[in-house]
Amino acid sequence: MTDTLSPSATAAYVDRSGTTHQLPDAAADAQVRADDRGHVFHSWSAQAKIDPMPVAAGEGSTFWDYQGNAYLDFSSQLVNLNLGHQHPDLVAAIQQQAGRLATIQPIMANDVRGELARRIAEVAPGDLDKVFFTNGGADANEYAVRMARAVTGRRKVLSMYRSYHGGTAAAISLTGDPRRWANDPSDGSVAHFFGPYAYRSPFHATTEAEEAQRALEHLENLIVLEGAATVAAVIIETIVGTNGVLVPPAGYLPGVRALCDKYGIVYIADEVMVGFGRIGEWFAVNHFGVTPDLITFAKGVNSGYVPLGGVVISDRIAAHFDDVAFAGGLTYSGHPLACAAGVATFEVFERDAILERVRDLGSRIVEPALRAMAERHPSVGEVRGVGLFWAIELVRDASTREPLVPFNASGPDAAPMAELAAACKAAGLWPFTHFNRVHVAPPLVITEEELVRGLAIIDEALEVADRYVA
Amino acid sequence: MTDTLSPSATAAYVDRSGTTHQLPDAAADAQVRADDRGHVFHSWSAQAKIDPMPVAAGEGSTFWDYQGNAYLDFSSQLVNLNLGHQHPDLVAAIQQQAGRLATIQPIMANDVRGELARRIAEVAPGDLDKVFFTNGGADANEYAVRMARAVTGRRKVLSMYRSYHGGTAAAISLTGDPRRWANDPSDGSVAHFFGPYAYRSPFHATTEAEEAQRALEHLENLIVLEGAATVAAVIIETIVGTNGVLVPPAGYLPGVRALCDKYGIVYIADEVMVGFGRIGEWFAVNHFGVTPDLITFAKGVNSGYVPLGGVVISDRIAAHFDDVAFAGGLTYSGHPLACAAGVATFEVFERDAILERVRDLGSRIVEPALRAMAERHPSVGEVRGVGLFWAIELVRDASTREPLVPFNASGPDAAPMAELAAACKAAGLWPFTHFNRVHVAPPLVITEEELVRGLAIIDEALEVADRYVA
Repeated sequence: MTDTLSPSATAAYVDRSGTTHQLPDAAADAQVRADDRGHVFHSWSAQAKIDPMPVAAGEGSTFWDYQGNAYLDFSSQLVNLNLGHQHPDLVAAIQQQAGRLATIQPIMANDVRGELARRIAEVAPGDLDKVFFTNGGADANEYAVRMARAVTGRRKVLSMYRSYHGGTAAAISLTGDPRRWANDPSDGSVAHFFGPYAYRSPFHATTEAEEAQRALEHLENLIVLEGAATVAAVIIETIVGTNGVLVPPAGYLPGVRALCDKYGIVYIADEVMVGFGRIGEWFAVNHFGVTPDLITFAKGVNSGYVPLGGVVISDRIAAHFDDVAFAGGLTYSGHPLACAAGVATFEVFERDAILERVRDLGSRIVEPALRAMAERHPSVGEVRGVGLFWAIELVRDASTREPLVPFNASGPDAAPMAELAAACKAAGLWPFTHFNRVHVAPPLVITEEELVRGLAIIDEALEVADRYVA
Repeated sequence: MTDTLSPSATAAYVDRSGTTHQLPDAAADAQVRADDRGHVFHSWSAQAKIDPMPVAAGEGSTFWDYQGNAYLDFSSQLVNLNLGHQHPDLVAAIQQQAGRLATIQPIMANDVRGELARRIAEVAPGDLDKVFFTNGGADANEYAVRMARAVTGRRKVLSMYRSYHGGTAAAISLTGDPRRWANDPSDGSVAHFFGPYAYRSPFHATTEAEEAQRALEHLENLIVLEGAATVAAVIIETIVGTNGVLVPPAGYLPGVRALCDKYGIVYIADEVMVGFGRIGEWFAVNHFGVTPDLITFAKGVNSGYVPLGGVVISDRIAAHFDDVAFAGGLTYSGHPLACAAGVATFEVFERDAILERVRDLGSRIVEPALRAMAERHPSVGEVRGVGLFWAIELVRDASTREPLVPFNASGPDAAPMAELAAACKAAGLWPFTHFNRVHVAPPLVITEEELVRGLAIIDEALEVADRYVA
């Protein structure tokens, strides 16, 4: 809220083309704040308790406030900005498509809509060949569940505790984190199960293999006790995202696939956060060698430059709807502007070998740095992840694994994490923090220098957490 | 599917700036069709029974297929294209914003997000001063209902038969048309009531005033019998859209407002289709002099150039969430690219006096033309509407009012309407047809010449319907 520049602040920045941009002044900042506080109602917030920061500009992995403070974005906004801010290819694709044909209704055929669908089908596993486009991840999950119910003639859906599947009624019912609590169970036919989480095993397992085996046994028990003949779908984030970057142990997802086959259940992989390069694969299921029946996506498909999500559909499920109408739809399904940014995303990924880059940076830079932090900081209980998607789980005591802050803490209880986040921001890093964790999820185009610098900031900030260790 | 041009077809078109654009060739058409049929899964359709038309270009109120056939769009796509195809101000706003800052996460403050919220608040009635942005109309309605439930502590929602409120689980439960049938009642706490429909009065009324009075009595009965203390919200399309352009009689909506006040119920006005100029008002409630607690919008806010919707919120409801978190949200809430197109929409509406234009064209051109058609064609049972939003309701017998085709007809039963639509298309008009109705809902920027020409095409095509009159 200060008008004075911090020592590191600048009045201008230079973009990748070498052009210098002046940042807006304090008067502009005041206008943005006035409009925002007067008229914008924000997501998931008590409106009087937030103080939204006006953002003036973004470039690559960095964004600037109106005071000229730069933030290195280790959160990729909401883990959607896979190609970073203002990627010239995506900007050009949007500008060009806006000049050609900004929109056309869903029932028409459209060149970029069809091209994006084809390209997604080409990189999706197995016979997942058709794409139903939505506006984002929540409605993708809503419609995936609807397809599963129509195909199976069953109604129940099984989803994980410690999951997030979106904010609309059916999607928040699937969700297994506290954002569901404040919402009535809008959809009563969801049952939640425990997924593998070796560091805090719900199954008292002592090895990854045992965790996988017991988690599958638990899921099968749940299917049997809920009534297999009533279960339409199992929906799983291929790697649990916001709720912990929980990478499933080897064998778990193939085991889920086998259970779904055994009981005639549709397997929905929610890849809204983890698809499109986050772990160095087009789809994270490719990393685990499994083929779901439906994959939902959003975010990374076009870095969120234009709202877009969707469902990739197996031939078997698509065929069900050849003669029976699919009972769902939306005005902006397959929006040309959004799809054009998606096609450009494919071109950039291929030309710049983004997937290979993510795998390289993850294993060569991020993993060693985080393992070193785990050695150095008593507050680090575990680090885990793959590609450019990692979590640092913080504890008060490494032996008891007591979390640094309680589950779903807020206010004074959450102070250690708030202080850690503030330390990161003061040092120019915008972190992703959730409960007792710091996630590392920068844009996939982050430079090696930026990545090393950002990790060093986290390393130093962890000393804040160390002070709370017993 | 033919490669030969029809007599009226062209190989090029000239845009408003005078630039000539060549249309793509048959090879391009084949590629679009192949991608579409191979990989795009379409809304509300049996996939093997549709043959989506590749659209090559659009300009103003016209779009072209790949054979060079031009269609005058009397449907504004899905009644969203209020400023027509490729409006230069909206295109420029999108291109400019894409070059500045394509996206930023919802928790940040953003200049165009705040400006659009302020401008919407300025034209919204009463103390509706805050805006929660969504991706479209369905999630706007989902989150409006969630706000009403949180504020009232009640769960039930009352909505109309003959309504459409969106495709996601909660929104389709609110819906009162056949698109709900194929979906299980995802939200069991919705009860449906009958709205006023003087031409087919559910209340055996013989005048508009009697229709209004009896419809209010019916609604109050329903509130009492459902239990007023259990009812969170009443949601009403201010003018029922797809299900009939049902303009409420004088007194009805003020009566709804009074009932909601009497019983402590939140009044949600769904203006997804009818807001932003469709009837010559920013919000249709302004036409009726009522102030709801929440207004939902989408479509016309930026002509659907970028997916955008939202909820306009009264101070009383917004204040509830000052200290209590609103339990909803989405990654693309307040998307800058979408908001930039919204700000440009305000500028165009004001500079070009769009609202005045709509009222003038509606009363001076459309209404007299439709009334003349009603006189001339025995198949026309009633015409009704306001601004640039009209319905022609077709019957087999003017005295019995038997609909030209049965409710929700398909296949051979729907043949008269299919033939009528085909006659319009053959003459170069893209109509909006639904059940036994033709709607007139062209872009608000349609020229007078185009409007007169389109109405003449419908007039002539109605002879197809006349042949089915007993």
